[in-house]
Amino acid sequence: MSNIPGKRKGLGLFLLGIFCLVSVAAAAYAGDPTGAETLKKAPGSPVDYVWVLLCAFLVMFMQPGFALVEAGFCRAKNAINLMMKNLMDFVVGSLAFFAVGYALMMGKDWHTVIGISGWFLHGDSYDVHTYLIWIFQVVFAATAATIVSGAVAERIKFPVYLFYSAIISAFIYPVYGHWVWGGGWLSKLPLGVGALDFAGSGIVHAMGGFIGLAGAMALGPRIGKYDEKGRVKPLVGHNIPMAALGVFILWFGWFGFNPGSTLSAHELRISVIAVNTNLAAAAGALAALIFIKLKLGNWDLGMTLNGALAGLVGITAPCAWVEAWAAVLIGLIAGVLACLNVLLLDKLQIDDPVGAVSVHGINGIWGLISVGLFADGTYGNYTTKAPFVTGLFYGGGAGQLIAQLISAAVCIAWAFIMGWITFRIAKVLFSGIRVSPEEEAEGLDYGEHGANAYPDFIVSSYMQR
Amino acid sequence: MSNIPGKRKGLGLFLLGIFCLVSVAAAAYAGDPTGAETLKKAPGSPVDYVWVLLCAFLVMFMQPGFALVEAGFCRAKNAINLMMKNLMDFVVGSLAFFAVGYALMMGKDWHTVIGISGWFLHGDSYDVHTYLIWIFQVVFAATAATIVSGAVAERIKFPVYLFYSAIISAFIYPVYGHWVWGGGWLSKLPLGVGALDFAGSGIVHAMGGFIGLAGAMALGPRIGKYDEKGRVKPLVGHNIPMAALGVFILWFGWFGFNPGSTLSAHELRISVIAVNTNLAAAAGALAALIFIKLKLGNWDLGMTLNGALAGLVGITAPCAWVEAWAAVLIGLIAGVLACLNVLLLDKLQIDDPVGAVSVHGINGIWGLISVGLFADGTYGNYTTKAPFVTGLFYGGGAGQLIAQLISAAVCIAWAFIMGWITFRIAKVLFSGIRVSPEEEAEGLDYGEHGANAYPDFIVSSYMQR
Amino acid sequence: MSNIPGKRKGLGLFLLGIFCLVSVAAAAYAGDPTGAETLKKAPGSPVDYVWVLLCAFLVMFMQPGFALVEAGFCRAKNAINLMMKNLMDFVVGSLAFFAVGYALMMGKDWHTVIGISGWFLHGDSYDVHTYLIWIFQVVFAATAATIVSGAVAERIKFPVYLFYSAIISAFIYPVYGHWVWGGGWLSKLPLGVGALDFAGSGIVHAMGGFIGLAGAMALGPRIGKYDEKGRVKPLVGHNIPMAALGVFILWFGWFGFNPGSTLSAHELRISVIAVNTNLAAAAGALAALIFIKLKLGNWDLGMTLNGALAGLVGITAPCAWVEAWAAVLIGLIAGVLACLNVLLLDKLQIDDPVGAVSVHGINGIWGLISVGLFADGTYGNYTTKAPFVTGLFYGGGAGQLIAQLISAAVCIAWAFIMGWITFRIAKVLFSGIRVSPEEEAEGLDYGEHGANAYPDFIVSSYMQR
Repeated sequence: MSNIPGKRKGLGLFLLGIFCLVSVAAAAYAGDPTGAETLKKAPGSPVDYVWVLLCAFLVMFMQPGFALVEAGFCRAKNAINLMMKNLMDFVVGSLAFFAVGYALMMGKDWHTVIGISGWFLHGDSYDVHTYLIWIFQVVFAATAATIVSGAVAERIKFPVYLFYSAIISAFIYPVYGHWVWGGGWLSKLPLGVGALDFAGSGIVHAMGGFIGLAGAMALGPRIGKYDEKGRVKPLVGHNIPMAALGVFILWFGWFGFNPGSTLSAHELRISVIAVNTNLAAAAGALAALIFIKLKLGNWDLGMTLNGALAGLVGITAPCAWVEAWAAVLIGLIAGVLACLNVLLLDKLQIDDPVGAVSVHGINGIWGLISVGLFADGTYGNYTTKAPFVTGLFYGGGAGQLIAQLISAAVCIAWAFIMGWITFRIAKVLFSGIRVSPEEEAEGLDYGEHGANAYPDFIVSSYMQR
Repeated sequence: MSNIPGKRKGLGLFLLGIFCLVSVAAAAYAGDPTGAETLKKAPGSPVDYVWVLLCAFLVMFMQPGFALVEAGFCRAKNAINLMMKNLMDFVVGSLAFFAVGYALMMGKDWHTVIGISGWFLHGDSYDVHTYLIWIFQVVFAATAATIVSGAVAERIKFPVYLFYSAIISAFIYPVYGHWVWGGGWLSKLPLGVGALDFAGSGIVHAMGGFIGLAGAMALGPRIGKYDEKGRVKPLVGHNIPMAALGVFILWFGWFGFNPGSTLSAHELRISVIAVNTNLAAAAGALAALIFIKLKLGNWDLGMTLNGALAGLVGITAPCAWVEAWAAVLIGLIAGVLACLNVLLLDKLQIDDPVGAVSVHGINGIWGLISVGLFADGTYGNYTTKAPFVTGLFYGGGAGQLIAQLISAAVCIAWAFIMGWITFRIAKVLFSGIRVSPEEEAEGLDYGEHGANAYPDFIVSSYMQR
Repeated sequence: MSNIPGKRKGLGLFLLGIFCLVSVAAAAYAGDPTGAETLKKAPGSPVDYVWVLLCAFLVMFMQPGFALVEAGFCRAKNAINLMMKNLMDFVVGSLAFFAVGYALMMGKDWHTVIGISGWFLHGDSYDVHTYLIWIFQVVFAATAATIVSGAVAERIKFPVYLFYSAIISAFIYPVYGHWVWGGGWLSKLPLGVGALDFAGSGIVHAMGGFIGLAGAMALGPRIGKYDEKGRVKPLVGHNIPMAALGVFILWFGWFGFNPGSTLSAHELRISVIAVNTNLAAAAGALAALIFIKLKLGNWDLGMTLNGALAGLVGITAPCAWVEAWAAVLIGLIAGVLACLNVLLLDKLQIDDPVGAVSVHGINGIWGLISVGLFADGTYGNYTTKAPFVTGLFYGGGAGQLIAQLISAAVCIAWAFIMGWITFRIAKVLFSGIRVSPEEEAEGLDYGEHGANAYPDFIVSSYMQR
């Protein structure tokens, strides 16, 4: 063996190491990695797998939706940076959720506080059902992370972005997620049937929105957004059709987000969920269109798009428990709330470039609350035999509503505080979280990525400094 | 109670009102909102629900496809307006179809003329199966409305657009739809097995195309499209790759449109439908590519894209009843028809900016006719036990063909006349349906929406005045 | 009859001809075109049809993904040409695979060399199951063809493109495809369980990549890519966000590509495949991001996007047979391999504009090899009762690995040689395969298509001559 050159020896040892690792691992399987056992036990499961997987894929497709909305609503000089961020939060989020996040959120519950199994999807977790739940959950985790991106756009350092994305997907998101979806204490509140959030108005959207608020406040407004008298100088987006395409994609992807959250196709209620999702989006868009027309006199596309998203965020928690007309009403209110909050944030001089706080934060909370108001008592869960949910307007009393309010308060507090701490730590680790004023003026594309998004076009970004 | 301030009192009354409304409503349920009953009766239905829903989502995704085609083939100065229109026809269409359209089209039949139940999806209609059919139908209704958009592009007033979109989705589309799909008189013609339209060549595409023709004629051509001698001055699209992306998305979405129209996954014929859809699209594109190359000498992308769409429109009615080679033939003819009609419309000086009439109108009719020619007698409907359909070339006699021709004539007449009346009414209601020549020259983005689609780029739209 | 004018007589004869053709054809059916028989025999098949069809649709949607990546990474003056090519390879590919390719690949096996039935999907092939397999296979065939497009971008004559796309889809791809997937000799190698390629790392990606290598070498580098001293002058892409959108779409479509390749939803392993696909993509992106950052000092979006694709290509062959952590490792290696090969090709002055060889060629081979290393022995195929697969690291011995290496070598040789011959023949048929230097400088959009992709924008492509 002594005549093997060092490199090949190294390779040999490396391969041997993998071999040992694998041998140990192989012995540990207690799940059903093949799927044959699961199929025998539940012969009807293929349609559930098909449903959950295809819905997960639709939710994954929301990633470019967010990317296009953000890049379109920001300036050309930051377009590469924004696409990169929206790519990397999914990349980093996938790996962080694989290693840690999933176990914390959906692993074996420990005293209703946290999950503690399923690290690296290894051992007993090498199982078709566990992998199924993982792929559905990871796209939700990544959505929470990507929402933050909009609030910190056009001024955050790229490495800081990678850092906080990992923290969100590995820790902040999974913990609150466990409390509601993983068998944690909020889901066990002795009010109504415990705190509910069907597809994540709170868990995903308010979470992302309020971490985003912490980020926007930690960073401060972009140069030029507010003049010395506090008046808003709009920094207009460089490609509005791109942003519109993004919203269409998000609307499309939301049909995976909400109906897929039954986690079973045997819940035929999926059709009601799809209808509610669509109607709330339409109502949100219409409300925003009319609100802004009355307020500012224009048929404004940007706010109408945000209105559609607001409706979608609002219906996400209640989508399974309400009737179509209630979905319309929830969407209408969401559209107006988004508009009002955009105006409010500008008054407070909090610069949220693409309205992440207004669309996802505020309406995530509205979605949680609306469950306690509009749940009509017609739906529990056929598969899990979960109890039917009845809100205030249908004679269910205030119990469910209070549970929802508690969950909403916890969500806001956890998201904002953890977000704030994360950005504080990042400030130390990366000697500041914001790019230099020169780089901000020149654009992050050049400063962080050494590239130009549109080199063949004559671009006049500097006019928007 | 007297010390409650007015505002809170108002809110209290509002909540009380909703409570009463809801209480009445709750008593009225006779459907199956949970889905549990339906599942018990039809344990195989989950796969049908999954199929219909996912296909509906794909069809919904055609909305951005249409938006991109239209915006890409028009000028930069109208890009926001075109995205806005394609967003709002889906928004308005969803709400109008929710309130009225669905009931007229798919509600309980009244003397084969009209449907009369299902308003607001309320009462007995709060049912998983009704909601399932609704979500599949609403995306078709919105498609019909959005097709019109292309024909009236770059010169229609935005509020007029909102108005006629509502009329189409609430009334024009549902009525003819009822006659063919809702159990109306055309479906009961004593010729062949009654008029047929598998996925809507006529109901959706010809309908949209001929309403569009009425709109294009009512508006007149865009400034500069024809010179005083009637020669065409092309007003070229501002972003051809965007239009190409739109066509790819439409092709993708059409796989929901056609195969999904079985409304059941137990019809394994869905695979044949998918193949036919794909081959007709390919054949249409190839035919248009070659036709224009021979005619004009260029490998023209715009017409090739329209050729693909033409093939898709043409196969939409016959897709379930023909063999693959017939799909190729139907597509080839459709591609050529689209090209010929584009040339014809320009001779007539009817300005149809993105070819809506040529692609959807003419080929919608061609699709209806081709059923009567190529239906090969191998397929009825397994679920509904509908009879097998045989066209002229397969020895089925002329009966089916005549039924198709009658349906086609009715479609054209209804679409064009109702479209014409709608635009007449709009002319009165909105004091004209066309923007001012100044606004048209400057672009509708500025005039209607007070915005610029591409503020960071140097745009030279004025060169295309 | 003598008074019928010639034209109508011609039409009559034409219709009579079709009628005869059809009558003969109708007699020949031995398949199950309706699906009723198939459903009776296999009552659980609807969910499999739904799964395979929807996955096929997702794979079809990869076509615009490739188009956007290519157009975005190339210059504005060739954008129409690139969209056109990516449209037409699917068009030509669909028709060629319909006529010939499918029969050669998946038809009745003849001595493990070639398939010999199913031409034009006619006769016995008019069958729901055959059509199902066809639609799934055609989108794979078209993917192989479209990969080549990237390597020959910005300088190939358009008719040559049409020609070679037909050859690939009709012959080159199906033959090797038959050897591995159609029951051919590679699948029957007496090593391991025979050569394997779950979803086509080799069959689709390496095939496309190495035909592309032949094309890139036959064409030579673009003008200006290398200076006289062989140094690289980057010809940067004109729309990087467009390319990023393309990669997101490809990632999304890959969820059809890999999990769909079970061809059955009763294989619950589909969840594991989806997870592996996602993790390998994430790992590939991260590896490329870090590698380029260390090497060049920038957070480079272009290479990160290619890294994600590299990970996806790498996991395509092994996706069904490995655990999640192995998918991460396979993806990490793939990301680095792609980067290294980009640098290598530039040293060799082989101009591969969008990295098709590096991403698809090299990593397609890596994917084949990794099956022989990481297959963990937990999965065969429940439906077909195929044997479990065990690679080197899991104690399966070297048999499977050697089978994979043989298949890889055959793939490279077949692809490169057949590609080379095809481009040689094209050189004769079309008097050269490359556009003139003038046309190349001016852009193929003008030269081949007589059009401008962005007429409203001021474009400075000439600066990139």
